[in-house]
Amino acid sequence: MYTHNDIAALGEDIRKGNRVSLGRAITLIESKRKEDRILSDLLMDQLSDHKTNSRRIAITGVPGVGKSTFIEAFGLKLIQEKQQSVAVLAIDPSSGISGGSILGDKTRMSELARESRAFIRPSPSGGHLGGVAEKTMQTILLCEAAGFDNILIETVGVGQSETEIRYMADLFILLMLPGAGDELQGIKRGIMEMADLLVMNKFDGASQENAKEAIAQFKNALHYFPPREDGWIPEILKHSVLSPDTTSEVTVAVNRYFEFMAIEAKLDKLRASQRVWWLREQIQRNWMNKLYSTAGFEEKLKESAQKVLSGELNPFKEAREILERLE
Amino acid sequence: MYTHNDIAALGEDIRKGNRVSLGRAITLIESKRKEDRILSDLLMDQLSDHKTNSRRIAITGVPGVGKSTFIEAFGLKLIQEKQQSVAVLAIDPSSGISGGSILGDKTRMSELARESRAFIRPSPSGGHLGGVAEKTMQTILLCEAAGFDNILIETVGVGQSETEIRYMADLFILLMLPGAGDELQGIKRGIMEMADLLVMNKFDGASQENAKEAIAQFKNALHYFPPREDGWIPEILKHSVLSPDTTSEVTVAVNRYFEFMAIEAKLDKLRASQRVWWLREQIQRNWMNKLYSTAGFEEKLKESAQKVLSGELNPFKEAREILERLE
Repeated sequence: MYTHNDIAALGEDIRKGNRVSLGRAITLIESKRKEDRILSDLLMDQLSDHKTNSRRIAITGVPGVGKSTFIEAFGLKLIQEKQQSVAVLAIDPSSGISGGSILGDKTRMSELARESRAFIRPSPSGGHLGGVAEKTMQTILLCEAAGFDNILIETVGVGQSETEIRYMADLFILLMLPGAGDELQGIKRGIMEMADLLVMNKFDGASQENAKEAIAQFKNALHYFPPREDGWIPEILKHSVLSPDTTSEVTVAVNRYFEFMAIEAKLDKLRASQRVWWLREQIQRNWMNKLYSTAGFEEKLKESAQKVLSGELNPFKEAREILERLE
Repeated sequence: MYTHNDIAALGEDIRKGNRVSLGRAITLIESKRKEDRILSDLLMDQLSDHKTNSRRIAITGVPGVGKSTFIEAFGLKLIQEKQQSVAVLAIDPSSGISGGSILGDKTRMSELARESRAFIRPSPSGGHLGGVAEKTMQTILLCEAAGFDNILIETVGVGQSETEIRYMADLFILLMLPGAGDELQGIKRGIMEMADLLVMNKFDGASQENAKEAIAQFKNALHYFPPREDGWIPEILKHSVLSPDTTSEVTVAVNRYFEFMAIEAKLDKLRASQRVWWLREQIQRNWMNKLYSTAGFEEKLKESAQKVLSGELNPFKEAREILERLE
């Protein structure tokens, strides 16, 4: 249990870059206990005025596309060649139910985990009404307060999490496999449209031939996308962990994107619009939570749903009456 | 202005199939005035226990695909050959903003409009927070109370309205054009996956050659869709208003679908699950409306958004404080 003073101290330790404190703070944010919630809000209020030059980079793709190995190679490149620090977070859309983690543990990125400038954190488990995004955003802010230069956010490219990532990340990288149409990859077209960089991963061995055709197809598909408001033209890159040069090319493209976003303060404007989204999102979420945490509400809803299912009650009328009875 | 007695009389007239009363009731449902809202709720409560064998058929496709001419041909076929009655409604996702209507007026379906067994109603204009779907659902129920055998719901295949249509319609028909990849048609893949019947419209003249290839492509695409829980296999049909036989084939396929859905009461189960969706949806919508209609809330939100945009306020903290100040 923390006191308010403990929280102030915890915040100070995080600002000094203390990894143990950072880990504890994330655990606090992930907690579903109401008293922890109050403390984590206090901590976030303390740290959220922090200004940094961090880069928030989301990386998505279907299972099997090689996200972990890509992130490891990319992270090591940033650390070893650019002397930057790297935090790796994960959003697991299913974690709200299973409590599981797509990263599993750090053993999946063992080489990166050994670096002192790296911090790897498995995905938060979710609470009510899609709280995963909120917790991830707060974890990003914590990592920034701790001084990380790059925040890499891993998501599985199948869920709703990708639309929310728009409001968290500066840059969205979509990993794809050579030789697989997007039908096979289970990628929704909307996700491709969101990508700033498309990376054809596992570009090695026999798959290089397939990849060429796939790249041509993707380039063609890009033509059909509506032009972007910010003027950025998404790039298609090839990547293989077996070829360090391809990882360098990714870091160059990432730099190019951030240089582009620095023109006319595009990045500042993007983050400002993201903050406004979070304001509305949080108001709506907190308001809905208020409803669902009203004593007896969930039981009543369950009971009504049963009667609506059988046709005994009319959903429109019952919806009004449930709320009237709450007042 | 109606009194409670007027509403009871209006409901009775609708049950007798009076078209003028039906039109008035829809206008009442579309009204944004709070007192009208209370009356329309009363009317819906009165009519919603109505049991019918109606068929709720949604028809979607991008602008230019020929929705109006298709609906006219299909509607006339049902009326003239099957002696059924047909109500045509429209959902316009943009109407919440523009107040416009995709149907424009009845002149777009002039032949159908002349039939005594047809009723054509342009799209309702929306209120707060996507009220269009709610009003459309209530209009469907009104048309059923008035005894219509078929309710055809026209939507534009570009917006959010298609996901909501799942909870209103029994059958979802997607119109497509021959010779255009789905990129060109602006159809989101998720919408194709929702379709029970895919109709290649304007299948005439020179476009027949293109259509064959397009049909092969779509058949191929269907293979990649996840198998449906209800076991229905979506069909691909060709249609041209110039060839009445193709319209007959559509009516046959529609009958086949409803016969399939009658097995093991699949249709009843579908509608029951839709009602439960509406219960939850309406509770959430009414609860959100309560927030937005709180005195001073919108002004406060606007002011806070400005400060969050400039970076002066932290969105997480401000979201909590706005709600605390309301209490």
